[in-house]
Amino acid sequence: MKLGIFGTGIVGQTLAGALAAKGHDVMIGTRDPQATMQRESASGATRTPFRDWYAGHAAVKLGTFTEAARFGEALINATSGSGALPALEGAGADALGDKILLDVSNPLGYSKGSPPTLTVSNTDSLAEQLQRAFPRVRLVKTLNTATAALMVNPGAIGGGDHTMFVAGNDADAKAKVKGWLGEWFGWRDVIDLGDVTNARGMEMLLPLWVRLYSALGSSMFNFKIIR
Amino acid sequence: MKLGIFGTGIVGQTLAGALAAKGHDVMIGTRDPQATMQRESASGATRTPFRDWYAGHAAVKLGTFTEAARFGEALINATSGSGALPALEGAGADALGDKILLDVSNPLGYSKGSPPTLTVSNTDSLAEQLQRAFPRVRLVKTLNTATAALMVNPGAIGGGDHTMFVAGNDADAKAKVKGWLGEWFGWRDVIDLGDVTNARGMEMLLPLWVRLYSALGSSMFNFKIIR
Repeated sequence: MKLGIFGTGIVGQTLAGALAAKGHDVMIGTRDPQATMQRESASGATRTPFRDWYAGHAAVKLGTFTEAARFGEALINATSGSGALPALEGAGADALGDKILLDVSNPLGYSKGSPPTLTVSNTDSLAEQLQRAFPRVRLVKTLNTATAALMVNPGAIGGGDHTMFVAGNDADAKAKVKGWLGEWFGWRDVIDLGDVTNARGMEMLLPLWVRLYSALGSSMFNFKIIR
Repeated sequence: MKLGIFGTGIVGQTLAGALAAKGHDVMIGTRDPQATMQRESASGATRTPFRDWYAGHAAVKLGTFTEAARFGEALINATSGSGALPALEGAGADALGDKILLDVSNPLGYSKGSPPTLTVSNTDSLAEQLQRAFPRVRLVKTLNTATAALMVNPGAIGGGDHTMFVAGNDADAKAKVKGWLGEWFGWRDVIDLGDVTNARGMEMLLPLWVRLYSALGSSMFNFKIIR
């Protein structure tokens, strides 16, 4: 399957690498591919620059947001919270069309220091902002509640027996995404929370997530809904 | 152990009933005990009026907020979100002293309809508001992330193998509360998130909780942190 992924950070890299390894045809979209290939890692020495990751993944293509949007039969938004709307605007409504968009982003803001706060919450969500800006896109919020390594490999902890959520307005898109989460990565327990307004609940899990990350000293954890 | 519980709703009733059944000496505190005994249920026919519940629990005492605060060796705030600060103000700083207070309340607001939004979140929390108003009280946020029936009986689902959180500024108080959660109710996995500011994460779980309640059609669920 042809997939367009917005975002060149650890989430985009992890999703692109895992999907390419599964035999999918993946293009990562970025604002300016040439600049992306020249950029040093924002985190300095602690992370590999994108060009080095890219050099090790020959099957993955790199293009503009518009090129990746046109390329993909389905799209994944794996940008930062602040990068999400600019990415979709960069792609443009024509290229996005009515494609299914898995929105993995989180509206984390660091202006108040660490732990981050949410830049939108409670009465609105980033997913709703994106859906309002691009009403034809069939947005499905998902995967934002787990660290990148677990998004693509839930089996890494607890035998994969934990929970993922989806929220979005298009029932057919959600059904497809639930199927893909199982086929691509092995997610077995996926709870449909309802329309896109329910992304508020998924994004508002992040303030607990960042605190659990501190308390547990590891990002390799996830929520299982016991019932 | 002598325990003072603020709040006459389903949470206060459930905690008082369970603790009295365990042999603890429990006084429920309310603004006006006489009015509480005369009140019809706010939810009309769907819930038992407090006086009927009380008639069936002879071991439980009823008093003012101040009386319950003076009575308890430890205190539990089981009011609604909007009732929390008035309850503590009703008790008064003298009666509260430096007692341990388990804060179980959630800042749910229904002014925007259902599902509820939070009346404070993201950069502050109800627990912090209470702690700031009564700085001597040793507040421990806990139990707010599960329905009342599970607070007192986690074994009702999944063999009790799921997670509770605590947050608060006083390490000794948190250690005692962790012990009590195990002794009183059988909680085995209790994660300490840190100081009282981390109650933000616990309270911001509620927007997901209310959506899971809708999606699952039951309140008998809880979060387990798989790691």
